[in-house]
Amino acid sequence: MFDLRPVGFIIGQLIVALGVTMLIPMATDIIYQNGHWQVFLESAIIAILLGGLVGLATANRKKKNITIQQTFLLTTGVWLALPIFGALPFILGEPDARVVDAFFEAMSALTTTGSTVFSGLDELPEGVLLWRSMMQWFGGIGIIVVAMVFLPELRIGGMQIFRSEGFDTMGKILPRAAQISTRISAIYLTLTGMCFLAYLASGMAGFDAINHAFTTIATGGFSTHDASFAAFQGGAEYVAAVFMILASLPFVRYVQMMAGSSRPLFSDSQVRAFLWVLVVTILMITFYRMATHGGALEPAFRKAVFNVTSIVTGTGYASVDYQLWGPFPVVLFFFLGLVGGCAGSTCCSVKIFRYQLLFASIRAQIAKIHSPHGMFTPRYDGRPVSDDVISSVMAFFVMFIVTIGVLAVLLGATGLDFVTSVSGAATAIANIGPGLGDTIGPAGNFASLNDTAKWMLAAGMLIGRLELLVVFTILTVKFWRG
Amino acid sequence: MFDLRPVGFIIGQLIVALGVTMLIPMATDIIYQNGHWQVFLESAIIAILLGGLVGLATANRKKKNITIQQTFLLTTGVWLALPIFGALPFILGEPDARVVDAFFEAMSALTTTGSTVFSGLDELPEGVLLWRSMMQWFGGIGIIVVAMVFLPELRIGGMQIFRSEGFDTMGKILPRAAQISTRISAIYLTLTGMCFLAYLASGMAGFDAINHAFTTIATGGFSTHDASFAAFQGGAEYVAAVFMILASLPFVRYVQMMAGSSRPLFSDSQVRAFLWVLVVTILMITFYRMATHGGALEPAFRKAVFNVTSIVTGTGYASVDYQLWGPFPVVLFFFLGLVGGCAGSTCCSVKIFRYQLLFASIRAQIAKIHSPHGMFTPRYDGRPVSDDVISSVMAFFVMFIVTIGVLAVLLGATGLDFVTSVSGAATAIANIGPGLGDTIGPAGNFASLNDTAKWMLAAGMLIGRLELLVVFTILTVKFWRG
Repeated sequence: MFDLRPVGFIIGQLIVALGVTMLIPMATDIIYQNGHWQVFLESAIIAILLGGLVGLATANRKKKNITIQQTFLLTTGVWLALPIFGALPFILGEPDARVVDAFFEAMSALTTTGSTVFSGLDELPEGVLLWRSMMQWFGGIGIIVVAMVFLPELRIGGMQIFRSEGFDTMGKILPRAAQISTRISAIYLTLTGMCFLAYLASGMAGFDAINHAFTTIATGGFSTHDASFAAFQGGAEYVAAVFMILASLPFVRYVQMMAGSSRPLFSDSQVRAFLWVLVVTILMITFYRMATHGGALEPAFRKAVFNVTSIVTGTGYASVDYQLWGPFPVVLFFFLGLVGGCAGSTCCSVKIFRYQLLFASIRAQIAKIHSPHGMFTPRYDGRPVSDDVISSVMAFFVMFIVTIGVLAVLLGATGLDFVTSVSGAATAIANIGPGLGDTIGPAGNFASLNDTAKWMLAAGMLIGRLELLVVFTILTVKFWRG
Repeated sequence: MFDLRPVGFIIGQLIVALGVTMLIPMATDIIYQNGHWQVFLESAIIAILLGGLVGLATANRKKKNITIQQTFLLTTGVWLALPIFGALPFILGEPDARVVDAFFEAMSALTTTGSTVFSGLDELPEGVLLWRSMMQWFGGIGIIVVAMVFLPELRIGGMQIFRSEGFDTMGKILPRAAQISTRISAIYLTLTGMCFLAYLASGMAGFDAINHAFTTIATGGFSTHDASFAAFQGGAEYVAAVFMILASLPFVRYVQMMAGSSRPLFSDSQVRAFLWVLVVTILMITFYRMATHGGALEPAFRKAVFNVTSIVTGTGYASVDYQLWGPFPVVLFFFLGLVGGCAGSTCCSVKIFRYQLLFASIRAQIAKIHSPHGMFTPRYDGRPVSDDVISSVMAFFVMFIVTIGVLAVLLGATGLDFVTSVSGAATAIANIGPGLGDTIGPAGNFASLNDTAKWMLAAGMLIGRLELLVVFTILTVKFWRG
């Protein structure tokens, strides 16, 4: 058995940090005088005390780096521990949620999924709404660090292809994490600030603008209104689309651009492919809407821009129930949700670069069929890709599909219908937000699902957010023997 | 441009052969005195004349083997040409089908899919029913030959792993095809005969028994009744299950068993995995049915055995509308359809051995995560598997999923609802038969779909039946340059 203390120590620290941030919604509730601030104080005390105890119990004088095994446990442990403590305010105060609902909501927040079991959002205390948005925001930056530091080191999902990018601290996991977090935080904060100002300029009220800035940059999708983005028609939709796209680009490029060095954003092949997918889909949906519903061009275009971007980036806002648009957008949006944004962003799902790698590999194989004795190496972004990366990506894709299948069958076993089971499994694993159908569709809510299904979906969000193989590796016997 | 003549020559011969076999339904209609036999005579004459012309036009004195490129074209060409000529009787006589419906039905037959656009089957002339069943039977043996000879040579979908199995004529495509066809035909005929007798013994009428023997051994799924297998409750369901399973095992094992040599059937790892999937699923469904509906054990068990086997083997008979069983079986059956039987059988879909290879590869990768400097080779059936095979299988799986997605979106664009689009795309690509929902579900029929959707589904059946990459390779520019 290996040493769990370094893992416990970091998780303890993060729980304490989470507890400290609860003072922000506390202050918010004090300012809004809604009589709810004690809830966040209690929750903060619990988190700081318990987190502190964990930290103390696992503190180790000898400072050393963590191993690969410990990194696996750390990543999964963080995304298990933080939702537990993040759920506290929902249980202790408004909306007086049951444990399963509170955990589901906190997991949905910290994985930036955006599925919600809460309704009556418009009546909730401001602190609660802000806390939901803040957790998504934390989840967003957390996942960028995981994607830029942990996954490449763990060789998960082909992310090792980005291993040597941008930073020269390879191999030293914690120092690298610290260095990258710092640089990324500045960019993340800047983008959030810009998004906030743009929302204000579009006419959104201050509190809504803060919350939506948090959940937009995290590509999370929580809103402060039951109506989600339908509450903000017009300019705000364009603002949201622009910042959802900015949040879906590889953050390492922003770091490089700020350093003034390196090649610009648009020469990154996954960025180009991502933008192409967006443009083509938006034009298709606009054309389809004009052809089937007529009306003015601008609203059709705007709805297409907003909703397509929301699905492809895995944000999950809805400004309209697109299920009423007819079957084509519904089927298209379902599969679009399995595409996703760029690696090293807050996006989830399969992600564009994996499709590029998969198709490059298939192209190489077809070439080999033509000329059985030739050597054909798949290339990504102009450089040859090793077999190791390709197998990793393939393993990710297979597990992605198989996990959606297994989760859908399990959801079906709890009594959910076919569309809810399949779209629920997909939206959880791909961390999108809304599913399809009357229950969990863009106009629906996850509240009415049975508890077993909610636990399963929460597990699915965790597994999907950590790119599946992080969690699955921990579940192997070999992992614990090693 | 390479020489198309050898391809044309073989296709011409096969069209002539198809024309000759039309004399069997002709004789049937004569015997049943239903006044419909001229239709088959006309169709036979057309097929024999045109096929003969093609053969003469492409005949080449110098006998030589065919190249890889020609093998690709031959495989696709056969499955395009035969449905065209096989559709003739449906257009010229009963049920006076339109071109799209006749082609859909013939493609569904020759790809052993089993989706039907015909209704009022019970009133159709006997010859027409027999012709549908015969085409499925031809498709079944055709695909075994393709799977045993062509795909391994073409290195498609990892089938090269079976390249050296059973026969020593490697590298000589046509002689190998001839040798294997002969040996397989004897087994295929024997199994069909046994199935026919067993159906008779179960109480089925002679004509029904012949037809269902054809479509059972082909794992095709066409029936002589609109009610499909609901017309034959009881013993016939067990008979069908046994022979669907026998038809889903690798035919090379039967050849080896008849030769008295070689290891027995059950030491084949894909056979064991396939039987495990069946047993586990059947027990789950039986248990679920008993728990939710109660009643006697035997009927619940029998329905589970029959319907699970029908879906996993891709046969597509229905003896009950299992959509009424509740959501769990529906979701489970949808994903079971993406499993499939053994390689080298009449089965379709992804097939068990590919999942075994994929999971072996993922296991090796997880092992590599634990010990980054170790060497881990995925193993199949005890032997190490080359990277070439794994990439091939991965490419197949990716294209399988992506093609279902693209086809579903296209079907959605023609106006089909989500469930019909997604299940229709899956059932076509996986060559199963029924989809889900009210329209194309187990109690439904493909007749009411729009023509565009029918053409798309027929194309999907062809692409899926030829394991995707055969067709996709032909669609590359490089193929035609080579």
